[in-house]
Amino acid sequence: MYMTKIKQDKEQTGSDLFKFQLHAVCHDTQARRGTIHTRRGRVETPAFMPVGTQGTVKGMLPEQLKEIGAQIILGNTYHLYLRPGHERMARLGGLHKFMNWDRPILTDSGGFQVFSLGELRKIDEQGVRFQSHLDGSAHILTPELSIGIQESLGADIMMVFDECIPHPATHAYVAESTARSTRWAARCKEARTDSSAALFGIVQGGMEQDLRRQSVVDLLEIGFDGYALGGLSVGESAEVMYQVMDWSLPLLPAECPRYVMGVGTPENLVEAVARGADMFDCVMPTRNARNGVLFTSFGKVSIKQARFSEDEMPIDPDCNCYVCSNYSRAYLRHLYQSNEILASVLNTTHNLYYYLHLMQRIRDAIAAGRYRAFREEFYRNRIPAGDGHAFTGSV
Amino acid sequence: MYMTKIKQDKEQTGSDLFKFQLHAVCHDTQARRGTIHTRRGRVETPAFMPVGTQGTVKGMLPEQLKEIGAQIILGNTYHLYLRPGHERMARLGGLHKFMNWDRPILTDSGGFQVFSLGELRKIDEQGVRFQSHLDGSAHILTPELSIGIQESLGADIMMVFDECIPHPATHAYVAESTARSTRWAARCKEARTDSSAALFGIVQGGMEQDLRRQSVVDLLEIGFDGYALGGLSVGESAEVMYQVMDWSLPLLPAECPRYVMGVGTPENLVEAVARGADMFDCVMPTRNARNGVLFTSFGKVSIKQARFSEDEMPIDPDCNCYVCSNYSRAYLRHLYQSNEILASVLNTTHNLYYYLHLMQRIRDAIAAGRYRAFREEFYRNRIPAGDGHAFTGSV
Repeated sequence: MYMTKIKQDKEQTGSDLFKFQLHAVCHDTQARRGTIHTRRGRVETPAFMPVGTQGTVKGMLPEQLKEIGAQIILGNTYHLYLRPGHERMARLGGLHKFMNWDRPILTDSGGFQVFSLGELRKIDEQGVRFQSHLDGSAHILTPELSIGIQESLGADIMMVFDECIPHPATHAYVAESTARSTRWAARCKEARTDSSAALFGIVQGGMEQDLRRQSVVDLLEIGFDGYALGGLSVGESAEVMYQVMDWSLPLLPAECPRYVMGVGTPENLVEAVARGADMFDCVMPTRNARNGVLFTSFGKVSIKQARFSEDEMPIDPDCNCYVCSNYSRAYLRHLYQSNEILASVLNTTHNLYYYLHLMQRIRDAIAAGRYRAFREEFYRNRIPAGDGHAFTGSV
Repeated sequence: MYMTKIKQDKEQTGSDLFKFQLHAVCHDTQARRGTIHTRRGRVETPAFMPVGTQGTVKGMLPEQLKEIGAQIILGNTYHLYLRPGHERMARLGGLHKFMNWDRPILTDSGGFQVFSLGELRKIDEQGVRFQSHLDGSAHILTPELSIGIQESLGADIMMVFDECIPHPATHAYVAESTARSTRWAARCKEARTDSSAALFGIVQGGMEQDLRRQSVVDLLEIGFDGYALGGLSVGESAEVMYQVMDWSLPLLPAECPRYVMGVGTPENLVEAVARGADMFDCVMPTRNARNGVLFTSFGKVSIKQARFSEDEMPIDPDCNCYVCSNYSRAYLRHLYQSNEILASVLNTTHNLYYYLHLMQRIRDAIAAGRYRAFREEFYRNRIPAGDGHAFTGSV
């Protein structure tokens, strides 16, 4: 029933230039290999989207992002609305031109940031009143304004304006909020004026199975080009996160891309892909990089440790990135200790390469029909000691 | 007499793998076009050396430096001695390997930084006692240690340990300090163990003609691979700086490279070249970049000004650098206002390109026998209003 409905709606009101092709589905898991076609080119899925909050993926040139395999990036509506402002951005020719990025951009709706302002915001049916974190100025963000901003930015994939429900929350609050987010989703679709950009719905419903299901049903009724799971990575355990994916992802139409928002660790991505997710974004690789925390094939590690001060090995001897090919742990530690700009640049390059290369290996494994084996190997290589203790003399 | 002396000394104790070739000398000015040969390759002169204080030219990858034409960079002995430490650096294979830079490196002697510590240091005949700016630990830097550090770093051109005399200073103090720097210079030459690296003497003598002359005579007596003018850009006027160059540079042997240390603005470089200088270093392009101040063919400008917020033009319409080819003033202002890493990266790229491209144009002009005309054109293009007001609607 969902399928018929979504197809029908897509024909009527979906994006003209947006298409999702499914190439392979794993036999053992729900993992899917596909291609998203946008007006600015393709995205091979499963895909990770580096986060470019303020019109730049922090520390990276667009050419460097392309070199490590970024096919799409995420822009933050809230930040760009406040600075430089969406009307100014429109006058300057849109976000792509502004930041010199000609591949697809997905923009969030601004909802997540506005809700994370806490005390500074107030919700009603119309939208959210909030104060700018930059200058305290008063604003109201509505579904209509969110779409207006995203269209001004020139997003290739837009997201509906929703509430990212805090965790934990009562069933009653989750029900009320999710119903409101559904009404806002309908208003977003109504507000769209440019059919060449895609619009994705966002499944809410907190950690409640009945409300997640209801959210899916209601969004499919409205009909979107793709569907996201929102409200994850908000403090719940990994088990609960995977449970919510297990409840929700199978209900979504196979012919639309499925985006799990704000997730997550490399393990989270491997697990979410096994459950049928196609798209991800997370600040983890970029933010961790700036804090000296690096991702490797054997786990996460902090480069600031004194034991790296004369370590001539690359971060990860199994990694082929520019950083691992040219620099030692000793040098990266020195740059970090010296608070050098290049510390952020090199650490970000390595971490994003790790994430994007992981997605490449995931895509290859699904295409080769061996995702289950890939997942087992992935866990086998990791040293359980985990954070900050992954490097050993023998690696 | 100087010439004979220097040649004789060079044969006895100069670097084996260091050579300076003079290709052309301007008919109207003292400008010289040459090539320095080092054990790690050539440097075309007149040359500008980007400053890489802590084992990195702030915000730039080595490949990016090469792309904009950097042939040699400067490393800071004082900083690298304190962190990561020269013995550690030697164990890690030297500075080139550490920072992934295979072209020549010139290291300063540490003197300039130690003397700029002010209260934290004390001079005697042996050397300088000082406290680390990082942790307050006590150190003594001597001519012998300075050379030891520079050899541990693997410098291709080393500088003698000297006192950079504050300005203003009494004739008596300048005389005393310069004589001590000369004794230290002799000790530096004595301390050298690796004849494949070059060692440059540094002319001191403050703003006193007799003492500058004496310093030159004494250094030539000792004999070095090249000669620098130190103690400039310490607060004196441009006129005084040029006066010191006019007193000193003609006394130096034509067959050795002449390096004017810590200088300067684009105007300073054009003037120093006209007076026969071959090499320069300065933090101005890199430090200004991080503060949002950009060099252009029409003067210096601050990118933070509100009037650039919707300016779609590149920083300098006459510039062919990566930044001017791809980004607007509006974007660069946005990055700077947002305190983004990319602001430093792009601004540094542009400013260093400006300096290195200026040196290229200078070299071409000398080779073509038209340096005087070049110098006139250089001044003609500049808008006298200067700092922060150079951009106009019409450029």
